[in-house]
Amino acid sequence: MLVQSWTTIQTEIKPKQNTSSEPVVLENNSIKVIVDTKSGTFQVTEKKSGQIWNPDPWENAAGILTIKDSKGKSQDVNISNSESIVVNKKDETTVSISFNNPKLNNNTIASGVSIKTEIRLTPTKLDVEVISYEACNNKLVELRYPARAFSLETDVDKGAAVIPQKQGVICPSYIFPMNGGRFCMWDDATYYGRSKGKLPLFNNNIGLSMPWWGTYNEKSAVIGIIDESARPSMFFNINNNGQYLFTPKGIMSPNKRIEFLDPVWNLNRKNEKKIISYQFIPNGTHVEMAKVYRKEAIKRGYFVSLKDKAKRDPDVKKLQGAIYMGLYGGYPHYVEMPGMAFNFKDLSNIINTTHNDLGVDNAFFHAWGVFSNFVPNCWPINENLGGVAGLKEAVDLTKKYGYLYSSYHAYSATLENDPEFNTGLFAKRKDGKLINTNSRWANIDQNKQLGLAKKSLHKEIAALGLEADITDISFATYPDEDNTGLFNLAKYIDSLNLVNGTEHGQQQWIPYFDMFEGMTYKNSNLWEFSHPAPLFNLVYHDAIAVFGKIQDPDNQMSKYGDFKVKSLRNILYGIGTTIFFSPYEFDGMKDMIKMANEVVSPVNKETFFEELISHEYLSADFNLQKTTFSSNTEVMVNIGPVKQTTPNGITIPAFGYQVKFKNGKIKKGQFKTSI
Amino acid sequence: MLVQSWTTIQTEIKPKQNTSSEPVVLENNSIKVIVDTKSGTFQVTEKKSGQIWNPDPWENAAGILTIKDSKGKSQDVNISNSESIVVNKKDETTVSISFNNPKLNNNTIASGVSIKTEIRLTPTKLDVEVISYEACNNKLVELRYPARAFSLETDVDKGAAVIPQKQGVICPSYIFPMNGGRFCMWDDATYYGRSKGKLPLFNNNIGLSMPWWGTYNEKSAVIGIIDESARPSMFFNINNNGQYLFTPKGIMSPNKRIEFLDPVWNLNRKNEKKIISYQFIPNGTHVEMAKVYRKEAIKRGYFVSLKDKAKRDPDVKKLQGAIYMGLYGGYPHYVEMPGMAFNFKDLSNIINTTHNDLGVDNAFFHAWGVFSNFVPNCWPINENLGGVAGLKEAVDLTKKYGYLYSSYHAYSATLENDPEFNTGLFAKRKDGKLINTNSRWANIDQNKQLGLAKKSLHKEIAALGLEADITDISFATYPDEDNTGLFNLAKYIDSLNLVNGTEHGQQQWIPYFDMFEGMTYKNSNLWEFSHPAPLFNLVYHDAIAVFGKIQDPDNQMSKYGDFKVKSLRNILYGIGTTIFFSPYEFDGMKDMIKMANEVVSPVNKETFFEELISHEYLSADFNLQKTTFSSNTEVMVNIGPVKQTTPNGITIPAFGYQVKFKNGKIKKGQFKTSI
Repeated sequence: MLVQSWTTIQTEIKPKQNTSSEPVVLENNSIKVIVDTKSGTFQVTEKKSGQIWNPDPWENAAGILTIKDSKGKSQDVNISNSESIVVNKKDETTVSISFNNPKLNNNTIASGVSIKTEIRLTPTKLDVEVISYEACNNKLVELRYPARAFSLETDVDKGAAVIPQKQGVICPSYIFPMNGGRFCMWDDATYYGRSKGKLPLFNNNIGLSMPWWGTYNEKSAVIGIIDESARPSMFFNINNNGQYLFTPKGIMSPNKRIEFLDPVWNLNRKNEKKIISYQFIPNGTHVEMAKVYRKEAIKRGYFVSLKDKAKRDPDVKKLQGAIYMGLYGGYPHYVEMPGMAFNFKDLSNIINTTHNDLGVDNAFFHAWGVFSNFVPNCWPINENLGGVAGLKEAVDLTKKYGYLYSSYHAYSATLENDPEFNTGLFAKRKDGKLINTNSRWANIDQNKQLGLAKKSLHKEIAALGLEADITDISFATYPDEDNTGLFNLAKYIDSLNLVNGTEHGQQQWIPYFDMFEGMTYKNSNLWEFSHPAPLFNLVYHDAIAVFGKIQDPDNQMSKYGDFKVKSLRNILYGIGTTIFFSPYEFDGMKDMIKMANEVVSPVNKETFFEELISHEYLSADFNLQKTTFSSNTEVMVNIGPVKQTTPNGITIPAFGYQVKFKNGKIKKGQFKTSI
Repeated sequence: MLVQSWTTIQTEIKPKQNTSSEPVVLENNSIKVIVDTKSGTFQVTEKKSGQIWNPDPWENAAGILTIKDSKGKSQDVNISNSESIVVNKKDETTVSISFNNPKLNNNTIASGVSIKTEIRLTPTKLDVEVISYEACNNKLVELRYPARAFSLETDVDKGAAVIPQKQGVICPSYIFPMNGGRFCMWDDATYYGRSKGKLPLFNNNIGLSMPWWGTYNEKSAVIGIIDESARPSMFFNINNNGQYLFTPKGIMSPNKRIEFLDPVWNLNRKNEKKIISYQFIPNGTHVEMAKVYRKEAIKRGYFVSLKDKAKRDPDVKKLQGAIYMGLYGGYPHYVEMPGMAFNFKDLSNIINTTHNDLGVDNAFFHAWGVFSNFVPNCWPINENLGGVAGLKEAVDLTKKYGYLYSSYHAYSATLENDPEFNTGLFAKRKDGKLINTNSRWANIDQNKQLGLAKKSLHKEIAALGLEADITDISFATYPDEDNTGLFNLAKYIDSLNLVNGTEHGQQQWIPYFDMFEGMTYKNSNLWEFSHPAPLFNLVYHDAIAVFGKIQDPDNQMSKYGDFKVKSLRNILYGIGTTIFFSPYEFDGMKDMIKMANEVVSPVNKETFFEELISHEYLSADFNLQKTTFSSNTEVMVNIGPVKQTTPNGITIPAFGYQVKFKNGKIKKGQFKTSI
């Protein structure tokens, strides 16, 4: 109360340029922000928990500017080392700051360089914005702002950095028990360059799938949501002491290990809004952060529920508990590839076996390799493999069994080894040079893709009576350009009112699709010092069905797990089983398909339309985890080799699970390896 | 015969400068080399098989020179585009070539630049050497020479590139059946930059463990062995069409996909011999190549047999069939780390359980975390954990059971979090700047390491009555510098006449050690388009015992496999099981330890002192493999999920094995996952 009235007094003072060294304060019921007038950095107190978020603990930098000198050499400078820093309380809720003439590393001045920012405190959030900047005769490249804010101190703060890379990870800020070999990598990584880097937005490789991130400790959490238009990258520094800043000087870093996540604003993009909005959550974790973003995602229009999608097309219900069966016949890479191709009799046999022998209730068959042409010409159906009649027989079987079926389609790629390889489809520069020569799956101009789809998709639907479509690749990213061409393709596919799937996926495409194949995990350095967390599903589980990635299907082992670990993660997150195989492998898939049908499908069937409400790590080693869905379904899994016991005394064996279904029934089990 | 006499005639002609455009020929019974006088490239015919190895199929370059212009910008130029190329038959067996004034990419001339090479044909090999070079006013960086020689054409040649990265891989030059997801990565990688790159020698990360490589197809094989002194890197291009050369121009590559391996000579190293010696093996594969190098390794003095080592110290026999049990207590990273540390009673209990309950006959216990100090001060034994008496009890148990024991030691690292962290131990530049600030495990000056070992190792041996020692890290690389300090440390450890082990290892250290922990596999791009192959073991199996890598132990899953795949590879290659765990994980390790004791140990016990004679891939998908050892032990394993049948009609189930022991007994089995 006292604090509040003090704020009121402050606001009565007319805004004027701050010339004293007194800090400038913004404050409301829950947050107090103190801006240091010397450095332009700020401290935030979240009042309920008492958490104080201090500015950059290494060099008290408000921001880090990358600037190129006249010789084209770039350097990073701390903008708090500027000739003049002007902090001005514009009004009750706004502080403006300008950083003028920053010092370069050789102690000369980058004269004429000026950066203006604003910090605005609203009742619900703290906006931090880069308002404008002047380069004068210098070249400004990018700005990390705010820099090293909301950082955690390693092994002092017990918390994590939360990063929605693909499905999502958390990077704990403290040591905890884990496998010794894993720990060696974990601890060492934090002293090496691997634990810092930049991640782009909406990229299929190592990018962020959602425009937010944050940190939390035992007291409080902070999430920053960015305006997407400026397409900042995210800089991460995970339990790293910044040795990378000192190695060129031949000295050791004097810094503590910390973790922080910074927005990196591309200063070549002059017109886009460079704003990050922070929200503070007492006692929050990655779950509450994801739920804050869920509200924002709904506001931004990315959220259309699976329930609504199923109302429009009841076949969406066939995805409930479905096993995604990707049968790879060498296509799209090759047509009738020796050793890999299947014919339509083979396909029918596999469908029959899956239903009759393996007892699978729900499946989505995706057949890679049914056309005589290469992508993007997905027509005609290959006569050598059995023609329309042969393939229709297989499709009819899927319908009879209540399964879904799609052939493989892509309109974004023309392949070098295709006899009809056509650079005429490529996106080109004004000077005629080809763009994306080095990205074979995205070389076709996005504005030509709708036309390619319209050439044949309707013929295939008519010939086979299709109820589902998978269009690969085009929507694996959300390119940083005018995406009208991709939206036109998405809208066309959506207009067909089939069950629509696409590879990987990005949130912008959720309104047009029912399933994403691959919003799981992909190799990146983060793996060495993070834990998978279902961030994407905490936001979108009830809006889009997620299945595994074909390059890392549940039947293959990778550093993200083997069949047992991936199956346990599937029930925990509400992700559908993906079995992706070449025809000759089918016999070897059978045991896994049966196990998935028994363990994974019943849980996903029950939770399919439900919100993923919570996710917790219940053991010190993070292996014992629990989620709940809005159906009150509770899933507990242990993804480690050692049995674990919950704080409530429930023991889950190694690679075991316990599911409490909404009717109260409890199912327990365990994956075992034996000779 | 006819050919021979023709050669004789040739040699009677007096050597003179070749001014005509007639090719120059070197020839013997088995090899004919034709040097093109215009380009300076050469073609090799291996007569027995008729295999013709053509020069660079992309641009007929003899070599690729990286040169820096006056502005410091570097470019790659084809030295066959030179103002003058002089090919001269010096004598019967030698052609000298000089490339003078190469053309730069802007069509100007790098005047004064000259490169002189020699090609020499001896009865057994073809030596290709960079004799000298002149830079004049230019800066020469490196030279790939010969460039793109001995290449395979993708999907035309049925063969592989053979690369001794760590334990070794082969990169097939053709498509074959494999998992669909794996294939997508495989095929795509070859159009992207990931399938080309440079690998250094003798580096613990992605380096080559032996100084050779080669290619083979269905007809013939060629291996190039390099003189190590010049420390060339190896450039690889695996089934890549060189799009990377054309993407900057905005056009598609007109080239065919090929694979080749080039030596890259560092031209800053003026005095070292830049020579690669090729040998040709009709019908050869990776096995015959490894055996060619085995002879060279013996000649170079790297090969000392385990039999001889066991004669000197009979305790070496305790490694036969041993399970390597790494108990990680948070050390060397931390001392008495909460949640990870064990005390000596715990250690004794684990040893007892391993022997009495799990029935393990042979084991090597490696205890990480027994000292009160951090590395490199491996003394005193921690009183809080039980002191000398407590640890001696554990060590005595290992002796009683016929096991080996070592504490963890390292003398190459002082850690940032050690209260006694000491930059005084660092290697330093002349100006006092610290070297290796960014490599925490190699920051100590190699010349100080012997002194650090001598401070305490003898005390520990005396106190505990040790029979084995593991000294970590120091020998994980073979640095490109004067290695007297490391040799002094190796010699000292060797002089103690214990069973000596070291992390990872390099061939240069084989004479001083009995076991290498970690000459297996580590992450690199090669994984996407290669198959593991036991190249190191084909050369050195009977000279050094190899166990798994602690960051990727058999109990952990990675892209190189999970417990079952790694166990199968262990018996196939003759690698010992590694179980690396934190104390709290021990209960979860028990089943795996029992399975390893049953499946892996009996095979390794029989093959321990034997040469690994052969290794074959018997199924089209490379999953069914067979090895034989000099004991006549035959091992067949199937590391895939689908049963496979040999050409002789023997069927091996998914993740199954069949071992024929030297007494003729056959043992079959299979790893299974179930719920």
